[in-house]
Amino acid sequence: MPSVILRTMNDSQNIDIREYMRALGTDARNASRVMGAASTKSKNNALLGIARAIREDIDAVMAANERDLERGRANDIDAPLLDRLELTPARVDTMIEGLHQVAALQDPIGEVTDLAYRPSGIQVGKMRVPLGVIGFIYESRPNVTIEGASLCIKSGNALILRGGSEAFHSNRALADCVQKGLAAAGLPATAVQLVNTTDRQAVSEMARMDEFMDVIVPRGGRGLIERIMQESRVTVIKHLDGICHVYIDDAAERDMALDLAMNAKTQRYAVCNAMETLLVAESRAEELLPELGKRYEAAGVELRGCDRTRAILGESVCAATEDDWRAEYLGPTLAVRVVGGLDEAIEHINTFGSQHTDTIVTTNYDASWRFQREVDSSSVMVNVSTRFSDGFEYGLGAEIGISTDKIHARGPVGLEGLTSQKFVVHGDGQLR
Amino acid sequence: MPSVILRTMNDSQNIDIREYMRALGTDARNASRVMGAASTKSKNNALLGIARAIREDIDAVMAANERDLERGRANDIDAPLLDRLELTPARVDTMIEGLHQVAALQDPIGEVTDLAYRPSGIQVGKMRVPLGVIGFIYESRPNVTIEGASLCIKSGNALILRGGSEAFHSNRALADCVQKGLAAAGLPATAVQLVNTTDRQAVSEMARMDEFMDVIVPRGGRGLIERIMQESRVTVIKHLDGICHVYIDDAAERDMALDLAMNAKTQRYAVCNAMETLLVAESRAEELLPELGKRYEAAGVELRGCDRTRAILGESVCAATEDDWRAEYLGPTLAVRVVGGLDEAIEHINTFGSQHTDTIVTTNYDASWRFQREVDSSSVMVNVSTRFSDGFEYGLGAEIGISTDKIHARGPVGLEGLTSQKFVVHGDGQLR
Repeated sequence: MPSVILRTMNDSQNIDIREYMRALGTDARNASRVMGAASTKSKNNALLGIARAIREDIDAVMAANERDLERGRANDIDAPLLDRLELTPARVDTMIEGLHQVAALQDPIGEVTDLAYRPSGIQVGKMRVPLGVIGFIYESRPNVTIEGASLCIKSGNALILRGGSEAFHSNRALADCVQKGLAAAGLPATAVQLVNTTDRQAVSEMARMDEFMDVIVPRGGRGLIERIMQESRVTVIKHLDGICHVYIDDAAERDMALDLAMNAKTQRYAVCNAMETLLVAESRAEELLPELGKRYEAAGVELRGCDRTRAILGESVCAATEDDWRAEYLGPTLAVRVVGGLDEAIEHINTFGSQHTDTIVTTNYDASWRFQREVDSSSVMVNVSTRFSDGFEYGLGAEIGISTDKIHARGPVGLEGLTSQKFVVHGDGQLR
Repeated sequence: MPSVILRTMNDSQNIDIREYMRALGTDARNASRVMGAASTKSKNNALLGIARAIREDIDAVMAANERDLERGRANDIDAPLLDRLELTPARVDTMIEGLHQVAALQDPIGEVTDLAYRPSGIQVGKMRVPLGVIGFIYESRPNVTIEGASLCIKSGNALILRGGSEAFHSNRALADCVQKGLAAAGLPATAVQLVNTTDRQAVSEMARMDEFMDVIVPRGGRGLIERIMQESRVTVIKHLDGICHVYIDDAAERDMALDLAMNAKTQRYAVCNAMETLLVAESRAEELLPELGKRYEAAGVELRGCDRTRAILGESVCAATEDDWRAEYLGPTLAVRVVGGLDEAIEHINTFGSQHTDTIVTTNYDASWRFQREVDSSSVMVNVSTRFSDGFEYGLGAEIGISTDKIHARGPVGLEGLTSQKFVVHGDGQLR
């Protein structure tokens, strides 16, 4: 009964955290073998069982959330954090709907592709398999507990969850529902375990126990992610900054350029796929910048411009420094730069961007292809708002995060990003 | 002229190795941008240009190799190492043929797949792109310089090579040919750079400069690989042990089982895809082990058996300990274990194996599928000798190594393993 060990952790700080984390790791590794061989039906039953458990235990879940909120208010945490922490009835419905959606997704595990004969007579293909054990480290929003669990269960992985301390009781109550759903489907409850201590050492231990962990997905601030990268012996699928660009090309259609530049910045500010720097081809700057300047001013967006931008919009626009080209404002501030054309735009993005999401607005065929090929970002778009960079919009069903890495998973990480492929080889006695 | 800096390194140990490696990294990062946008034609021209340069400079290459061999003989290095070090005319021909083969492979870069419309009207797909800068660390065999360079050039990456000290002059001469081929094709010579110092600190610096390196591929002994893993802030595609198994199932065809068990062990000993442990279903042990025992004895293979194996073959067979289940002998020694059946075989392989290559011999449909699905190795085979686990046999064209990792690349790593995919999104002004 691992949950017994978990509960005592909360009461006692005397337990050896290294031992505790290694016990979780051992259980997770064992559970991952069962999950990897589990049928689609039992994995879906677990997901629907979790949805049922949340409905049945809704009072306990809400009471736990209220405890977190009370402590949050007592500790004077700020309003946006309190908001993210709160489980409203609508948010609970969304969690439950999400579980049904993931259950409805096609099972990626066991899919065999590219099976082809070789001259030797062997037949070689690839089979999609789970990664094994995933460590998921996240902050504040308790519904992420359910999102992470549902993706890992569907993809046949075992999961160790480590949520933010401010959501401790909410996460505990939701993890209990997850374990009930797993047990009801005849799957090991240890397939999803919540780290039951807020001690930072637990994260360090997780990052070091590479014999039990296959990948760690941190979802949180840059400080958290950099600390984990520094310590980790386990592969980290990381999401660093979202410094996204819109480049208005010489051949941009005027209205589309204006609308995309507004939407990418102002539709929502505090998200990683919002535009942070606008690049405008010099041939279009005098025509477009004054109109854009008016619209941004009306929307309350502060501009930081290069010299040429300020020559057009006036000295009232702040002068941008190199720091602005590297800034992820996550708020109503926008850096603006006039560039010579496509080459300079690509150069700027590859130098100062964060390899997240970048868009060109153009009607020119060559420019669209060169931009797509040469911009080194996880999502490269033509005539689309950067705000579409998202697992749901891409049809991945759900996402555990957005990767700004190149290795293994790039861009929104859905079920497939939590899997790998192994070679399968068939023969009838081939010898070398 | 980076090669000037390189040559001085050889003469002086006073140069700051950190500075030197970061200079290589900066040049490689810049070159990677050019390589990523290079046409298929110019990349192929570079490969054929390298082949031409080797032919033209063959005297210099052979003289450099002779220098390494002389120093090797003077230092009393052992015969197998000297053999690996030697560039014979036949080996030079193979290198040149390899360059032509890689030129003939399809260019993986720029391939767009899965482009499909979403309900919002955007069209989302994936484009295959280079990883960027690859660090390749290898030992003794100088022809690996050419193999690594050809795969990285074709896949649009920049490469920093760090060969073994014993092959220093050979690698230098071959790297010169590579840079000539690149320059002849109008590509930056800095796309492939050889580290021109044998100081170990160079490897540590490479492993730490994650702003310049995207992935490190070490090919060498376990000590080298573990040291790099320990130090690296860069993703390492690693190849640890090859503890490969053949499992003779209850339903194995007799002659096929005997032939595969012999071939997987004895066709070549010192290779990672040779069998190291034979598992036999108990229902077949009394029938098959005596015949296998005879054949292995005739081939000079020493057996280490479990109790049941020794009960059948006699006490003259050494008793296996747990160390034998974990041993990569790379020589004429074989661990043998009688198992209850399929479940115990899978359990043994997943516990003691190295996730490299494992084979079942069976005529049973269910057993073949369960084995393929549940054995957690990079190559899982049915009725095929483990010796087929190889990039050429799999049709990858060439391989830079075999990965025993699950993340990013698993099994033989060819061109595709040196690439990644980014999302490409097309629209006509979609806003959120």
